[in-house]
Order: sequence, then C-alpha cells, then structure tokens
Amino acid sequence: MSVVLDWSNLATDRLDGRGVPPADVDGPLADRFRQALRTVLGWRDDGRLGFLDLPDGVDIAHEVTARVSEWVAGVDDVLVLGIGGSALGAVVLRDALGGVRWNDSVALRRGRPRLHVADNPDPDSVRSLLADLDPARTAVNVVSKSGSTAETMALHLVVRAWMEEGLAGGGHAAVAEAVARRLLITTDPERGSLRPMAEREGIATLPIPPDVGGRFSVLSAVGLVPAAVVGADLPALLAGAAQMRDACLVDDLRRNPAGLFATLLHALHTDQGRPIHVMMPYADRLRPLAFWFQQLWAESLGKDGRGPTPLPALGAVDQHAQVQLFMEGPHDKVVVFLTAPFAGEVTVAAGSDAPEALRYLDGRGLGELLDAERRATTEALRRGGRPSATLELSAVDERTLGSVLMLLEVATVLAGALYGVDPLDQPGVEQGKLYTYGLMGREGFDPPDFPPADPARRAGA
Amino acid sequence: MSVVLDWSNLATDRLDGRGVPPADVDGPLADRFRQALRTVLGWRDDGRLGFLDLPDGVDIAHEVTARVSEWVAGVDDVLVLGIGGSALGAVVLRDALGGVRWNDSVALRRGRPRLHVADNPDPDSVRSLLADLDPARTAVNVVSKSGSTAETMALHLVVRAWMEEGLAGGGHAAVAEAVARRLLITTDPERGSLRPMAEREGIATLPIPPDVGGRFSVLSAVGLVPAAVVGADLPALLAGAAQMRDACLVDDLRRNPAGLFATLLHALHTDQGRPIHVMMPYADRLRPLAFWFQQLWAESLGKDGRGPTPLPALGAVDQHAQVQLFMEGPHDKVVVFLTAPFAGEVTVAAGSDAPEALRYLDGRGLGELLDAERRATTEALRRGGRPSATLELSAVDERTLGSVLMLLEVATVLAGALYGVDPLDQPGVEQGKLYTYGLMGREGFDPPDFPPADPARRAGA
Repeated sequence: MSVVLDWSNLATDRLDGRGVPPADVDGPLADRFRQALRTVLGWRDDGRLGFLDLPDGVDIAHEVTARVSEWVAGVDDVLVLGIGGSALGAVVLRDALGGVRWNDSVALRRGRPRLHVADNPDPDSVRSLLADLDPARTAVNVVSKSGSTAETMALHLVVRAWMEEGLAGGGHAAVAEAVARRLLITTDPERGSLRPMAEREGIATLPIPPDVGGRFSVLSAVGLVPAAVVGADLPALLAGAAQMRDACLVDDLRRNPAGLFATLLHALHTDQGRPIHVMMPYADRLRPLAFWFQQLWAESLGKDGRGPTPLPALGAVDQHAQVQLFMEGPHDKVVVFLTAPFAGEVTVAAGSDAPEALRYLDGRGLGELLDAERRATTEALRRGGRPSATLELSAVDERTLGSVLMLLEVATVLAGALYGVDPLDQPGVEQGKLYTYGLMGREGFDPPDFPPADPARRAGA
Repeated sequence: MSVVLDWSNLATDRLDGRGVPPADVDGPLADRFRQALRTVLGWRDDGRLGFLDLPDGVDIAHEVTARVSEWVAGVDDVLVLGIGGSALGAVVLRDALGGVRWNDSVALRRGRPRLHVADNPDPDSVRSLLADLDPARTAVNVVSKSGSTAETMALHLVVRAWMEEGLAGGGHAAVAEAVARRLLITTDPERGSLRPMAEREGIATLPIPPDVGGRFSVLSAVGLVPAAVVGADLPALLAGAAQMRDACLVDDLRRNPAGLFATLLHALHTDQGRPIHVMMPYADRLRPLAFWFQQLWAESLGKDGRGPTPLPALGAVDQHAQVQLFMEGPHDKVVVFLTAPFAGEVTVAAGSDAPEALRYLDGRGLGELLDAERRATTEALRRGGRPSATLELSAVDERTLGSVLMLLEVATVLAGALYGVDPLDQPGVEQGKLYTYGLMGREGFDPPDFPPADPARRAGA
C-alpha cells in the first residue's frame, strides 16, 4: 500500500481514557460515516465532484506532457502565476517530486528549468523575482479558473509587459508571437476572459474542468503542468490517485482511510472539543502538503459558524516552536503526522575530537535522527493524553503523492457532510472581493464606507 | 512613530456588540494590565528578562559587525545552523532587511553572500543544499545556546566533515585552520560543549547572554550575525528596540502598545472564547515574522493546560485559503494584520488588447492592489463581527524591525503574567528530547516502551 493511515493513538485505550472509544468505530461512528458517504455519493451523482474523475484523465496527462515539453524547450525558468488552489498544489508537486528544497534559496538544476510559483502580487517580491529571470528564456503558466482573479490577472499583465519589453527588437508581430509561444494558460474551457484572449493571440491553453473547484484541482492540468515541468511521471500520479479514490468510496469505515480521517477528526472536534487539526510532516519535501491541506480543509469546512482550524507544522522544527503548546496547552488539538522514507541518508561522523556529549551521534544518520524525533514526539504526546494519527507514505513518488492528495480530498468532502456544510463553495470571500474592486475603481463597484480612524485607539513608538 | 498598534476594530462599537467594550480599557482591563506589568517588572528585577537589556548592547553590535566582516570576506554563501529561536529570527531579519524573497528559489546577490538558514536535519534537504555550495567559499555560523541541541549538533558535524573534505589537499593542520577560520559559534559564554571546543580549535565565538532564552534572543548575536551578513545597520535595529521597550513598560494601558496587544488578545480569549490568534502580514518580506511570533507566543504561553494558538497567515494569499474560515467559521479567532509600505511599486499596464474585465487594473500598482485587499478584508471581517487589529510599520527597515520584535517580546511576557503561566520555560518538550536520546542510543538514556502497532487500526491503499 502506498499510503496508510494509522489511528492507533486516537483511541481511548492508548490515551488513558481520552480519545475515541475504539468500539465506536464499528458502532455510532460507522453510522455517521455511512450517512456522510451517502451524501457525498449524492453530490457525485449531481455532477458536483468532478475531482473524483480526474484520475481517469490519462489523455490529459499525455497532452500535458507533450505541450509542456514543447513549451519549455530552451528555457531556464518556468513561472507559474496563480493563487490559492492554483498555486499550492504546484508547490506540493514541485517540492515532493522535483528535488527542490522548500524554504531554500537555491534550486537544483537537474537539466530541467527552475520552477517558480508567484502567488502574491507583492511588488517587492515581483521585482526581486523578475530581476533574476531572463524574459527570453522564461516560460509562463497563467492559472485561473475564472480568468478574473485580481491578483493573478495583475501579475499576468505585469509579466506580459516584462516579456514584451525583454523580447523587443523584432517587429511588433514577431514580439507578440514570441510571447505567445512562451505562454500557457490553464483555465475553464468555456467561461472567463482568458480563453477568448488566448484564442485571439494564439496562446496554448489547457482546461480546468467546469465541475472541478480550484482547491480540488491539483490532479487537473493545474497541477499536472508544474509536475511535468519537474519531470514527474503523470500517469503514475493519476494511477495512485485512482487506487486511493476507490479505497475511499467503500462503505466499510475500518477499511476506508478517508472515512477514518474525516470521521475521527470530526468526532474528536464535535464530541471532545478539539477543533484544531495539526498537519505535521517530518520531511521538508512534504511541508507544502500541510499548507495545501490547510487551504482545502479551511475553505471547504469553515462556514455557517462551523469548521475546524487546520494548523500546519513541521517536524522536527516545530518541536522547538509549537510542540510545547501541543503537549501542555489546552486539550483542543489533534495532530496528524506525515512520514515517508528519505531519498537518501546523510551519516554523521563525530570524530574523536568531538565533545563527549555528542559522541552518540557518531555513525547515525540525519534521517534516523528525524525519525527518532517523530517517534519520540508521538509517544510523548500519547502519554500526555494528546491524540495523534500518522499518515505513512511508502515513498515520496508520483504514486504516493497521487494517493495522499486524493485521500485528503475525499476526506474533505466527507467532512463537509459530517459537519453539515457545503464543502464546495466559499461564500465568505465574496464581500472582500467586491470591496477590493470598489477600492480599485472598477466600474460598477463602490468602495466600502469605512468608519473613520479613532486616534484614541492607536498606540506605538 | 515607527510601529503603531491600531485596535479600533477590536471594540464593541465597531463589531455590532461583539469585541471589547472600549470603556473597559480604562477600567477592568487597565487593572489587569497593571497587575501583569507588576509581575513582569518583578521578573526583570529577578534577572529573568535579559532580553530587555539587549537593545543597550551597542558594544556587541560593533563586535558583531567587525567579526562578520572578517569572517565572510571572500565567501559566496553563509550558512546558519540553528533551530527554533536560533533560526526563526535569522530568517525574519534576512527577508525583511536583505531583500531576499521568502519562498523563492533565487537569492539576490547584492555584492553580499547569500544567507541560508538550515534548521531541519532532513537528509534530503541537507544534501540538496550542500550540493550547491562550495565548501571553500562558505562561512558557517553554528547557533545553540546549550551546545547540545541534537538537530543543530548533528548538522554541525555533517557540515564540518563536508568543509574538511572540500578543503582537503593541504596538510591536516592547514585544513583544520582553514575550517576554523570559516566557523563562527554563537553560544552561552559559560556553559555547554561548544565553547571549550571552540577555544581548543581557535574558532571565534559570540555570546548568548545566560539570562536570554532562545526565543527571546533575536536581538543578541543570534540575530545580529545574520543581520550583519545581509548588511543591516545594527545600531539602528537596537535603537528601534530600545525606544519600543521604553514605551512598553509604561503603566498607562492606552499608551502602551505591548500592553494593549497582550491585554486585548487575552481578554478576547478568556472572556469571549477566541483562543486563536492570527498574525497576518500583507507583505512577503514580513511573512517570517508571523512564524517567529508563532514560536514566541506558542512556546511561552502554551502550558498548564492554558495558552492561545497562534496561526500565521499571509495577505493576500490567504484570502484564497484561510479567510473563508476567518469570515464564516466559529467566532474563535482574532486577526492581527501587519502592514508596511512597499520598497517600490510595480505598475500594471492593461493595454487596449486586454479583456474589458481587466481594464480597471490599468495604471494601478501591485502594492495598491495588495493594500486595497487588506483594507477590504479588514472591513469585511468587521462587518461580520470578526475582531481585528493592525500593526502598522512606517517602513521595513532596521528601526521598525527592532521596534516590532521588541513590542511582541514584551507583549509575550505580559501575556504570560495575564494567563498565569511562566513565559520563560518550556517543560513540555523535555520528555520528547529524552526519548529521542534513548532511541538514538545515547548512553544513560532509555528508549520509551512503545505500545505495539495495532493492525486493526490501519487502513490505506
């Protein structure tokens, strides 16, 4: 099996009476789960869960591979412009499959272009990023389902102008053609402003199926393009997802990893007051997965006054930051550890010069240390009555990535049914968008009427 | 003023009855605050708050500047090895003051070495990082107060061996001397295993004062070294901190920004059930500050079954991820926005070819857009009865960084007094350390006795 959920340490007999009574998994929780699964299958029948069909998109995978290979020929850098669901999955796949270290300032060049994901329209980052790229040797992927996302559209216009300026020298038509050749647009196949523009200008496009929401789109062209850029095996990614999808739709809770994930976390929240769900990989390459999950879980479930709060963490780093709170703070959290074998080991040599207190490290591996830390933290939490589960990946490769992404997506819609919310909408961000349009002077939109600043409520130095 | 806290939108009259009654700030909350301040001043008199004296360390600042300039001469890369409080502050200062974009794979070279902070002993990241560095042109700063942190010590031994191998060719003594010249050790001046080793091998050291805990050490040599590497003006950093420290020790709550920060967040938690404190900068350069704050707040306050949960976010990115939950989820959060002017603007040009729906962006700036999004989100939250405050930085420079770091440090010890916990210890992470030593075979430590895996509690595909 490529991904296994181990929930031993969520059960009362491991937690000195706290946690979920294990027999409930065959009783009331199984009932809850079956009802949630029925709701989810109803949504599927209504055509709302297009993400469940993405693993069958082998044709799209081949189309993406072919298009990407042509589009990146001769470039040094690829720039993905997107935000939220159009960016987070790209970073997950790049860091897990591309060998680039998250939070690092150096990209590995493995004979492939470097992959940058620009999500925030921060002028300082954008200048800093573009200053390091050669517009004649950069390919750009614009990702927006609606084609109207203000941040992505603004970045798109800025990057277009930068490319046009950098390629100037030929005539206008030659520049336009050169720019068009280096653009690839991922968007809704029918709606939005990007598609007519692409057709007019001869820019290649790839589809985001209309029934696939942004945060469920990682296995569409949205994620397949960046995965192809870093050289991933796309059919293997989809095959892993297909296998997991099938396992996550069976109605036997004990055998359904997404069902267990959703049902147990929901029960620990609503029955036991643990609304904070920590996702804690013990591997830098998997760190972005915690942020991708955060978006998926928060935006899908946080509505109608309900919803848990997902909290990303990283082992072993957060043992020196958040774990104190997890161990001795309020009993309001459940931790999900994420673990996978390392691609290679690095062995520590503590020579005879090394201080006595460090001699125990001699001959041991860094991966061995990280693994010991994860096991130690799991056990310390358990003895403190703090529940945790572990998602075990058998490797960090295409198959397991496809599996774990699908597991968490199915868990999210199941959790929507359990919490009694619609996991597919995001009505709470509309008002802010309208105010932004108003403040930016878009025709037909008014800026909000802010209350005046209160000088008596300001303090500083 | 370089940093101002605006708490207008925490008050009942802005939130349709939710939030803090503004008159309380002159009544019961002022009383609570004064008592907390008395506790804090007692801790200071007991010599427990060494961080309050760091802004007066102008001598150390000069020593650091001189040492760093010698140590980095002729190197391309600087590697900081540390974890938790020994790493997070370095990243804050690098990204805010060094012009390097967080989450980017390209470092700007401004005639200064690139600065890498390696915190996690992940073998895959370590190999990936070292493969891109030249051991003959890399300077290494090992940061550990105790000199026994397993992660940092393991990284230290690995990097030492890598340097020795890379410099091989001279005789043993010449190699040892060359390695020693490129090392700089930041540690306790009296205790620990690093100092005797440094003395024996002729490695330069800088002190972490014994009365300064790791998470309060950013204004000691721990943060000053990386700040000097990116070319920061260290006296200005300390001057900003000194000015803020003085403002945060006055007993007039209305005029004390740290007092307001701690007292209002504590009141919204304990009186109104909002235990989740979101820190949300609207600037990529300030994103690491949210993670630094997370460690400070979580590890200082999360104990004795108490403590809020700090949650980092980033504007505008999280408008497409977490803001749905902030807007429509449970009323369990307070958002603190962090805002600062951008160093420069990037103007969008939407030519006549641009789709009609994007024409409003023409001539507007990316920074203008980000600012509009922050104001729109603040107002949308306010109208939904969701409290928020804003920390306004007048610039992103040494003075404001020193100010905001000190504000949050003083707020943390005040919050410790308000929550009734000791903000200076971290007893909850000791057990995990002992188990790790046991699992790693360190003499005198036993591995924990784990319960066996339960195959009936595992599911996957």
